Amino acid sequence: MGAEEYKQVMAVRRDLHMGCGKIAVQVAHASIAAYEACKIQRPEWVKNWIESGWKKIAVKVNSEEELKELMAMAERLSIPYSPVLDAGLTQVSAGTLTCVGFGPAPASIIDRLTGDLKLL
Amino acid sequence: MGAEEYKQVMAVRRDLHMGCGKIAVQVAHASIAAYEACKIQRPEWVKNWIESGWKKIAVKVNSEEELKELMAMAERLSIPYSPVLDAGLTQVSAGTLTCVGFGPAPASIIDRLTGDLKLL
Repeated sequence: MGAEEYKQVMAVRRDLHMGCGKIAVQVAHASIAAYEACKIQRPEWVKNWIESGWKKIAVKVNSEEELKELMAMAERLSIPYSPVLDAGLTQVSAGTLTCVGFGPAPASIIDRLTGDLKLL
Repeated sequence: MGAEEYKQVMAVRRDLHMGCGKIAVQVAHASIAAYEACKIQRPEWVKNWIESGWKKIAVKVNSEEELKELMAMAERLSIPYSPVLDAGLTQVSAGTLTCVGFGPAPASIIDRLTGDLKLL
């Protein structure tokens, strides 16, 4: 168990052309929300992730459609996730899906979901 | 109590010239770590912050010294905080202080700490 790598992955839409500070806040929202979802659904994954150093990565996608496909695949893989809908106070319209946090989960599982996506 | 605004503030060093994805991950680390510290030290602040919509902002500083001054002032204001020391695998040296998460805390208190800093 200690040898397995765990990570949390945040996928961010680049087609919205959000600024760097805006992206950072969306990624932080996704990270905390997915972490809380995972604590309920997969507490042992969260425990192992914390013990192995809270690894997080941010990757990019180019459309809302891509995020929706990733969420559907996460369902099939039983990876907890949490979408971020922006409040729309700045830069994007209210209710825009900007980012999704996945996991933390074992690398061997989450890499099937996001392993081919480019780093942000 | 419901009328008071709460927010969490992440202060990021811009002098390190980290890329946008790297910054996003540092901010997410700071956000979760400060959130966990605050849950222990100020659980009522965390509760009110969640109920009022998890407001987060990212601001910029220009040196390690500035982050250290902010942490010293957070101590004086009794605002929970959590520094992020990078593991040094990419872009910056191991142990570099990259970012600090403050709060969540009532806006009336945290604005005394970070209210004059520019948004990232």
